[in-house]
Amino acid sequence: MAGGGWARAVRGLLLDVSGVLYDSGADGGVPIGGSAEAVRRALATQKWRISVLGLMIAQLGSDSEAKWPWIKASGLKLQLCTNETQATRENFVRKLRAMGFDISVPEVTAPAPAACRLLKERGLRPHLLVHDDLVPEFAEIDKTNPNCVVLGDAAENFTYANLNEAFRLLIGMEKPVLISLGKGRYYKETDGLKLDVGAYMKALEYACDVQAEVVGKPAKRFFESALAELGVPPEQAIMIGDDIVNDVGGAQQCGMRALQVRTGKYRPSDENHPEVKPDAYVNNLAEAVDIILQHL
Amino acid sequence: MAGGGWARAVRGLLLDVSGVLYDSGADGGVPIGGSAEAVRRALATQKWRISVLGLMIAQLGSDSEAKWPWIKASGLKLQLCTNETQATRENFVRKLRAMGFDISVPEVTAPAPAACRLLKERGLRPHLLVHDDLVPEFAEIDKTNPNCVVLGDAAENFTYANLNEAFRLLIGMEKPVLISLGKGRYYKETDGLKLDVGAYMKALEYACDVQAEVVGKPAKRFFESALAELGVPPEQAIMIGDDIVNDVGGAQQCGMRALQVRTGKYRPSDENHPEVKPDAYVNNLAEAVDIILQHL
Repeated sequence: MAGGGWARAVRGLLLDVSGVLYDSGADGGVPIGGSAEAVRRALATQKWRISVLGLMIAQLGSDSEAKWPWIKASGLKLQLCTNETQATRENFVRKLRAMGFDISVPEVTAPAPAACRLLKERGLRPHLLVHDDLVPEFAEIDKTNPNCVVLGDAAENFTYANLNEAFRLLIGMEKPVLISLGKGRYYKETDGLKLDVGAYMKALEYACDVQAEVVGKPAKRFFESALAELGVPPEQAIMIGDDIVNDVGGAQQCGMRALQVRTGKYRPSDENHPEVKPDAYVNNLAEAVDIILQHL
Repeated sequence: MAGGGWARAVRGLLLDVSGVLYDSGADGGVPIGGSAEAVRRALATQKWRISVLGLMIAQLGSDSEAKWPWIKASGLKLQLCTNETQATRENFVRKLRAMGFDISVPEVTAPAPAACRLLKERGLRPHLLVHDDLVPEFAEIDKTNPNCVVLGDAAENFTYANLNEAFRLLIGMEKPVLISLGKGRYYKETDGLKLDVGAYMKALEYACDVQAEVVGKPAKRFFESALAELGVPPEQAIMIGDDIVNDVGGAQQCGMRALQVRTGKYRPSDENHPEVKPDAYVNNLAEAVDIILQHL
């Protein structure tokens, strides 16, 4: 495992958040041991290389480098790539910072902003079945007379009444449009495993005989937008996640390497998955970052 | 439609209940116009033929007839074949009788008693995610230390917490066993369409990567046990239901004819179903019984 070839020539890290940085829970969640420190060490390579190499290149006055040589010269770049839909990105980042993760809003790629772009492009007016705390992400979107349903990890809002309401709207449409913010099967909170949005997506798909459009991991377009934020091509990026299908499989389909951590929702049976095989397993994010830093 | 060949040589009627006899609802539901009268007329053929033919045969003292000639000589026989899992059969029959349907408990084939037989055969101890009013059906079943989950139309019991609990039990089993009392997509109540047990079955199947065992329509074994109660071979029986897949498709797979009524959850788009084509459409149960009686 340690020191494998998978760790060579990495310039960008895409990190899943829940189950990699922290275990979520009703109490807000708890950081996974060593993760905040690992993020700090990864970002530190960036800062150090900016200061030294950027200065050297600036002094040389070289024109052969790209437009911003001090960025090109930096170490690891980092982007969080999450299917988190229980909070706005702003509140999500606030929570992460309170847990000791040195992260800012543009460093988070999340499904809700991606869904808003899609809704605008296609003139769709959503009925939202999402977590209360996510609703502000859709503030700019016309929600009158809905012609689609947007499903997120609504958690306590997944009531019998709310599911029936979303179902009735869909079944009443001539051509039902169901947009799902992710298709995860389940995730781990501090008080146990919870059904994720994908399970409810399947319920509505079956009831309405419709196929949902997934925004978020493992959609290719979603990984591509995270890579664009990162400014790193897929062959120089590595995804680190706890979800064998949505993190590992999705990233590999985009030409990235991908690691599965043995934290969060990881289960030993994942290692026998019939379709997806990670480039490596690591015990946790800290171990992954250790090995990647050794190969920088 | 009227007078088609489909109505010839019918000796047994299997009737779906919700959407055929009545529209269910929080208030207990309301009979569909003409249905109680139709059941009465169908049963009347039976009584008349018993009294006249039974008497004639008894007087002739013939031995060439079966053991109970007065039964063999009867007109239409009738069995309700329902996926109803919101009440015990006793309470279900009480409700139907109060609506004017002249039905008794042995005339109802329902999933819960069938599931109890299966649980006993296989030594399974269920965790129940069912409607409160169905629980007494499982009174005789050992439910300690569950090694399977039984899912019914739990309605208001389909809470986020209850679904997570059932999910955690399943995902914690070495080989998850999920038994679903039906796999309907939705049904109609007086206040609108509601998601049926099949939608929640799909959610748990996806989350646990397991295939549910369906007890109830459209399972072949379930139709066969209803036919056994009826004492009529499939080619002399006809199923009348509002569900194109579970009623019509399921019955046809057992060699029965099947009608779809244009009541209950029927939708015009059902008539373009890619796989299932009923032997005929009728506007409602009353029309079906009219035509069948004309061919007796």
